[in-house]
Amino acid sequence: MSTASLQLDAHGRMKHFLCIEGLNRQLLTEILDTAESFTGVTEQTVKKVPLLRGKTIVNLFFEASTRTRTTFELAAKRLSADVLNINITQSSTVKGETLLDTLRNLEAMHVDMFVVRHNDSGAAHFIASHVAPHVSVINAGDGRHSHPTQALLDVFTIRRTKGPDFGRLRVAIVGDILHSRVARSQIHALNLLNTGDIRIVAPRTLVPAHAESLGVHVYHDLEAGIEGADVIIMLRLQRERMQGALLPSEHEYYELFGVTEEKLAVARPDVTIMHPGPINRGVEMDSEVADGSRSVILEQVTHGIAVRMAVMSMAMHHHKKSKA
Amino acid sequence: MSTASLQLDAHGRMKHFLCIEGLNRQLLTEILDTAESFTGVTEQTVKKVPLLRGKTIVNLFFEASTRTRTTFELAAKRLSADVLNINITQSSTVKGETLLDTLRNLEAMHVDMFVVRHNDSGAAHFIASHVAPHVSVINAGDGRHSHPTQALLDVFTIRRTKGPDFGRLRVAIVGDILHSRVARSQIHALNLLNTGDIRIVAPRTLVPAHAESLGVHVYHDLEAGIEGADVIIMLRLQRERMQGALLPSEHEYYELFGVTEEKLAVARPDVTIMHPGPINRGVEMDSEVADGSRSVILEQVTHGIAVRMAVMSMAMHHHKKSKA
Amino acid sequence: MSTASLQLDAHGRMKHFLCIEGLNRQLLTEILDTAESFTGVTEQTVKKVPLLRGKTIVNLFFEASTRTRTTFELAAKRLSADVLNINITQSSTVKGETLLDTLRNLEAMHVDMFVVRHNDSGAAHFIASHVAPHVSVINAGDGRHSHPTQALLDVFTIRRTKGPDFGRLRVAIVGDILHSRVARSQIHALNLLNTGDIRIVAPRTLVPAHAESLGVHVYHDLEAGIEGADVIIMLRLQRERMQGALLPSEHEYYELFGVTEEKLAVARPDVTIMHPGPINRGVEMDSEVADGSRSVILEQVTHGIAVRMAVMSMAMHHHKKSKA
Repeated sequence: MSTASLQLDAHGRMKHFLCIEGLNRQLLTEILDTAESFTGVTEQTVKKVPLLRGKTIVNLFFEASTRTRTTFELAAKRLSADVLNINITQSSTVKGETLLDTLRNLEAMHVDMFVVRHNDSGAAHFIASHVAPHVSVINAGDGRHSHPTQALLDVFTIRRTKGPDFGRLRVAIVGDILHSRVARSQIHALNLLNTGDIRIVAPRTLVPAHAESLGVHVYHDLEAGIEGADVIIMLRLQRERMQGALLPSEHEYYELFGVTEEKLAVARPDVTIMHPGPINRGVEMDSEVADGSRSVILEQVTHGIAVRMAVMSMAMHHHKKSKA
Repeated sequence: MSTASLQLDAHGRMKHFLCIEGLNRQLLTEILDTAESFTGVTEQTVKKVPLLRGKTIVNLFFEASTRTRTTFELAAKRLSADVLNINITQSSTVKGETLLDTLRNLEAMHVDMFVVRHNDSGAAHFIASHVAPHVSVINAGDGRHSHPTQALLDVFTIRRTKGPDFGRLRVAIVGDILHSRVARSQIHALNLLNTGDIRIVAPRTLVPAHAESLGVHVYHDLEAGIEGADVIIMLRLQRERMQGALLPSEHEYYELFGVTEEKLAVARPDVTIMHPGPINRGVEMDSEVADGSRSVILEQVTHGIAVRMAVMSMAMHHHKKSKA
Repeated sequence: MSTASLQLDAHGRMKHFLCIEGLNRQLLTEILDTAESFTGVTEQTVKKVPLLRGKTIVNLFFEASTRTRTTFELAAKRLSADVLNINITQSSTVKGETLLDTLRNLEAMHVDMFVVRHNDSGAAHFIASHVAPHVSVINAGDGRHSHPTQALLDVFTIRRTKGPDFGRLRVAIVGDILHSRVARSQIHALNLLNTGDIRIVAPRTLVPAHAESLGVHVYHDLEAGIEGADVIIMLRLQRERMQGALLPSEHEYYELFGVTEEKLAVARPDVTIMHPGPINRGVEMDSEVADGSRSVILEQVTHGIAVRMAVMSMAMHHHKKSKA
């Protein structure tokens, strides 16, 4: 089953949210517009809407991530849903229960949504293709494949900062593209919004083969890559990669690819600085850049809640309508 | 103090829910009827009723069980209670606090209910006989003794599948009866409902001494034991038993006691297949049986929520009335 | 920035709650009066008020304490807030995220309050002096410095037991004063309420240098220290101190400083017995004393919920008003 037909129902509405590839521009824009309506909710005194009251959302985390789990838990609670956190590494698999039996059991408890984090690429798709019809699946990051809510909050942040016309934008993604599910999802989202110029900037060892086929321009020199950029998105450096000889030392990486105010001189004066967090200060960038007036790194976190509220409520809303 | 007088108040209403033995048929039927009324709640769009709003329920787990904890947590949340999960193995006992001091402290915080899981038989009774008058105790499994909410959901499932007349039913329980708190509770519940023929089917090493005194027929041969059965309940095989030489290898167990479609030929054609989960596929039964049209294993899980909502609300409701 | 100006806003209202030192008697009394109004809430059938509905409270625990976390979680839920439990030792610091980045991220998710527990003295102050203006910080215990909600619940309990006139009271604090954040906060609170006679009773090795400058009388003999006492507060003995040769054996400690009914004969006949819990029975005191009619140890636990509800709602309420 294709990703598109897995994510969308017969009427083109969202059922699961697994990766950016399965979306069209109209649906992507609809999600961003819905997220826009939720930014108000998280700023008011009572940060809660009753949209998902009485729904049960299960955070099904096969890979620990307090940070991501927290954002989904907050988004769910602000939609008034009940949330169950299940860490599969610690629980049912201990008794030798298979993944599918675990799913069947949770479904039988009439849960409404699984938010899935897994270190195997394709795990969320696998689960979505096996769940009961009444359950929605949201991908919270699977292996090296996809991290679609992160990409959504990134383009949401760009749209809020630079306006809706992506055609005139030059966006540079800097860092370990090869291993990054975030970068893959970002590239798909930026392409879907017809971004004028998408660049990836990385050492040769950290660029996927045939990267150009993704619709990007590849640079191995930081200053060439960010020249004239409207937006620079840095990726988090996974320190464990350095053991594998794919990466030089942190210090050397910073010398070559670390972003400083000085190097930023070649970008546009109003360049927007982004990072999915958590930042390695002094590695991916200088603190001066991270905390500077052009950085929207914390706005990304804020928007992450609104975007997740949008995805969750849209996937559920569909169900409500389709039953009626 | 006898179990009956511990579980029930002076008016015969439920105060604690500790084991099946303390119930009478009328009260058991009342619980099942109440559970029936909750099955609707978990199927509607807003799966929440305000019955226990403002009540605090503490999951007091001395033995890890994500699965059981999850069902109680869901049941409590769908009754709108606040839930605290406390894993005693990790917490207060670290500081040398005694069990009774822990109970006194939680009671002093005005909690309303303890859901207790413990690997010592009698732990829930001990706690119930020592708690403050305003607190109810629910046994979520104690040692080899009792797992009464599991037995309730089992007879609830049988009643829904076969109708209310247990007198005409032949029910076979297959597996490690000796070590099973589930089996003990099931036998008591089936007896209370006047089940026509209760059979236990197990290797000689896994049957308790004087088993017949429980009101069951004992079989050591699977096909003899399930012949003409209306319902077959398989128990989960605890692999750790095999070290103790009480059990042959998994393979040999499956050969002798594993249920297959073929062996089912001797049972009634409309036999109902049950298992408390999680299943060891290819040990207690074949996947074909577990996932076949006669299996109600997932319905058991669904009914587990309704049954727990019934027990929780009945134990609380009593308190509300008795104060008024 | 002084503690007072950090805790209070320009109008003298509470913004953070970090330590007793920053309070004045009027504000301390206002907190106790507010707590008084909440004792009713925890005793009624529906133990919930909508005061903090839609607010997000984060339990930010850098030091494990199920007991303290539970009281704050219960207090927050009974105020209808959403609660997130984040154990920092297990989570973001694993990825090398700095404390300030963690705070910035949580703030960006529009959380409203951090309840901070840390084993470094001054941690809550540090966090309070760096948080965003919309966030309140409550100190749930920092190193050896302060445990102000514990001290509040202690003076609240004394006020309820002995009445509001602290001037006529003789209060003895017995145990390891040197290492105790609880004792430090208690002494400040008792001084603020003009307690007639505050005594500390401890072995010479466990009294801070220049203890008298805190406004207390120092005793190294138990019976001299508790003679004529209206209130005796025992501290929990940290067994790990015994390794450091600061303490004799448990047995010897009990002989010299353990409180028994017999030794209590020198105190006032209506002496009130207190302990922050959990008790080491047979070390700090006899069970007969702990469970006797003069002990209010469990009332302390009950009052802990009301006092925490008071502090949380007052810190939030301020924000609400200041925005309006």
